[in-house]
Amino acid sequence: MFDHEVIAAVATATGGAIAVIRVSGSGAVECCDRIFKGRKPLSEALPNTVHYGYIMDGGRTVDDVLATVFRAPHSYTGEDSVEISIHGSAYIASEVMSLLLRNGARAARAGEFSARAFAAGKLDLSQAEAVADIIAAGSRAELAMASSQMRGGYSQTLRELRGRLLEITSLLELELDFSEEDVEFADRKKLGAMLSETEGIVSRLAESFRTGNAIRNGIRVAIVGAPNVGKSTLLNRLLEDDRAMVSEVAGTTRDTIEEEMTIDDIRFHFVDTAGLRSSDDRLERMGMERTRRAIESAQIVIRMVEPEVKEIGPLPESEGKREIIVVNKIDRSGERNIPDAIYISAREGVGIDKLCRALRSTVDTDGVYRGEAVVSNIRHYDALQRARESIVKAQDGLVGGISSELLSEELRMATDALGEITGEITSDEILQNIFSKFCIGK
Amino acid sequence: MFDHEVIAAVATATGGAIAVIRVSGSGAVECCDRIFKGRKPLSEALPNTVHYGYIMDGGRTVDDVLATVFRAPHSYTGEDSVEISIHGSAYIASEVMSLLLRNGARAARAGEFSARAFAAGKLDLSQAEAVADIIAAGSRAELAMASSQMRGGYSQTLRELRGRLLEITSLLELELDFSEEDVEFADRKKLGAMLSETEGIVSRLAESFRTGNAIRNGIRVAIVGAPNVGKSTLLNRLLEDDRAMVSEVAGTTRDTIEEEMTIDDIRFHFVDTAGLRSSDDRLERMGMERTRRAIESAQIVIRMVEPEVKEIGPLPESEGKREIIVVNKIDRSGERNIPDAIYISAREGVGIDKLCRALRSTVDTDGVYRGEAVVSNIRHYDALQRARESIVKAQDGLVGGISSELLSEELRMATDALGEITGEITSDEILQNIFSKFCIGK
Repeated sequence: MFDHEVIAAVATATGGAIAVIRVSGSGAVECCDRIFKGRKPLSEALPNTVHYGYIMDGGRTVDDVLATVFRAPHSYTGEDSVEISIHGSAYIASEVMSLLLRNGARAARAGEFSARAFAAGKLDLSQAEAVADIIAAGSRAELAMASSQMRGGYSQTLRELRGRLLEITSLLELELDFSEEDVEFADRKKLGAMLSETEGIVSRLAESFRTGNAIRNGIRVAIVGAPNVGKSTLLNRLLEDDRAMVSEVAGTTRDTIEEEMTIDDIRFHFVDTAGLRSSDDRLERMGMERTRRAIESAQIVIRMVEPEVKEIGPLPESEGKREIIVVNKIDRSGERNIPDAIYISAREGVGIDKLCRALRSTVDTDGVYRGEAVVSNIRHYDALQRARESIVKAQDGLVGGISSELLSEELRMATDALGEITGEITSDEILQNIFSKFCIGK
Repeated sequence: MFDHEVIAAVATATGGAIAVIRVSGSGAVECCDRIFKGRKPLSEALPNTVHYGYIMDGGRTVDDVLATVFRAPHSYTGEDSVEISIHGSAYIASEVMSLLLRNGARAARAGEFSARAFAAGKLDLSQAEAVADIIAAGSRAELAMASSQMRGGYSQTLRELRGRLLEITSLLELELDFSEEDVEFADRKKLGAMLSETEGIVSRLAESFRTGNAIRNGIRVAIVGAPNVGKSTLLNRLLEDDRAMVSEVAGTTRDTIEEEMTIDDIRFHFVDTAGLRSSDDRLERMGMERTRRAIESAQIVIRMVEPEVKEIGPLPESEGKREIIVVNKIDRSGERNIPDAIYISAREGVGIDKLCRALRSTVDTDGVYRGEAVVSNIRHYDALQRARESIVKAQDGLVGGISSELLSEELRMATDALGEITGEITSDEILQNIFSKFCIGK
């Protein structure tokens, strides 16, 4: 999968004042020299210096440019690289690209620069994935999460975890080597404590996916309640408030997903539902089926009631979900019958702030801003879950007295699962799949 | 209009793998140092070197970046400048921008970097305008035209012209100083020859606008002929051919202007018209009025006839326009009655190539590709026309024997008109108007 051919790609979007073309590989500088005319060839330039000159197509000047020279291993890819800053015209970009392709470069595949950085050991796999996440980041929380991952704090935690597991495995394997002598090198009690500690860390990381996923993909909120209780009024009120405080970046998706609002960097996707009650009417039953599905796919359920309601029964569909009870129409009645409920008037906009705070408090982002490792990538989450399962099986086996061989096998699976995250254990297929989701030029 | 405050702007479009933020002005490097943390401060860096480091918001890392340092006068603007290459996220870009703004920079106005390059004498006005043209260039011919203008060949021609006119004027003014003595320092015959030569060069430049404008804005072609002669069939055939050979860049405007095709870098806008004949019917007369307007606004008129037609009378509306006679339906008849006509079968696609070549031959772009000065900017064309008018008046005056004072006045007007093009003579208002059409970050 990895070679050192000279690759080239336009690394900026079309339409700005300037555009940047990236060239990297063995002979990248010499390749650029074939089309660059400056005071001296780039191959004679010091590393990390920028040079003014012309891109030439034979005798014809294509553009005047700035070329920055990087030398292996001190570049993003770890290879010799050149970044050519051209005038921001799609036409010039395509001319310079085709000149490079005619002079020994090939077009870079999506993510190929980052893949090379990974191959050169500049970034581990989770760090490389964070680069793509940084580019896609749409909020401060997302950015904080991806940045911390790219800077390797998370990788460090994973390396330590793998180290522990390898230590336990080597103790067990030492036993296997001497198995005929029936000795036990590893203190089973101490092993159990080590496994338990490891399982705790892996579980906490896996659990952080709830926060990471909320930051990355938002939280689905189903609004449930009887007809006319004010569900749509509440939704409009929430969206209206949001529109007033929309930030430039957060607002970019507003047009496509209307029932969405951002509270302090977390996106909430609201689903208005039909009421839930038993009925024989076919149409009504279809509506209720949709409501059930909406609740199932939601992480939070807002149950809206009228102020006269004295008691709220359990809603089977929302079992295991975070429920927020909202009593609407307090402009009409001063009754306060339900403890822990949030009292609002959707029509008059009273209590909406409190509801927003309640929604927002379901996600704890403090750790993210402190730079703690938070898992936001479902591939990592899957691997962590598999690691955890293997560790739990090993724990059970330890109690049940299974053989060191089986114990060791489970722990090796856990170690490998963690290694998949950072790319220490991986296949070309997985790598290709990961990097193909990157953009060209990254 | 010009200051040296630190200005900053995102110079790339949103959406790429990387984005570049430009910072320029007195103290630009120090401003960046307030938010940049590398191995050493940028203010201690050598000019034209690139440095890896972090953009910090207090203790929080916003992004890891490459910062390139330029020192006055060796930068685009002629000022101290820094280009910060960040991860290509709109969110990071806005964070870095707001950090810069909080640390002494202000947001750059459209074209302000180029305006400063002009103020620093790095580019004259026509060269700065060419920078914007380069970015907007959609074809090789447009790019060649703008590139040659940016590299200053055109400016050189204009400087020489102004030099000549100033020489003539100074001779005339010498006479004025000694006017009481009634001497003639300037040989009237030699003056006439000098003026005539100058007028020739200015005229040729002004006339090149026909080519420059065709390259930049395309050529309007009216297709005129009796109903059922095959006008729409021809149009469809032309567009269909074009679709098959559309290039990536040229194709970008296809969706908005359907009746357009590009032949070898020149865009042709086709207007299908109703037939022209006398009629009393009100609706038909309205249709013909539209036809007349279409012909008036066209540079080329294609007159389509059936093969049986023996003679084609003059079309008053197309007087002064390039006319191309096209005989259609040669699949039906072998008659060849009209010399210089192009014989085609729109239905069967015969002769279309020849018609395309005939259309394309109306624009001579060889000079453009050789790097000759071609005027494509209507502001320049206007100034050249005014210069020419003044020179012609001076020539007439010379023959008619007007006073040296009036002669001198006309020539000064011509000199000033030429100076407006390069910005030697100009007003803040004109400059503002020109640079405000640039994009931000340029």
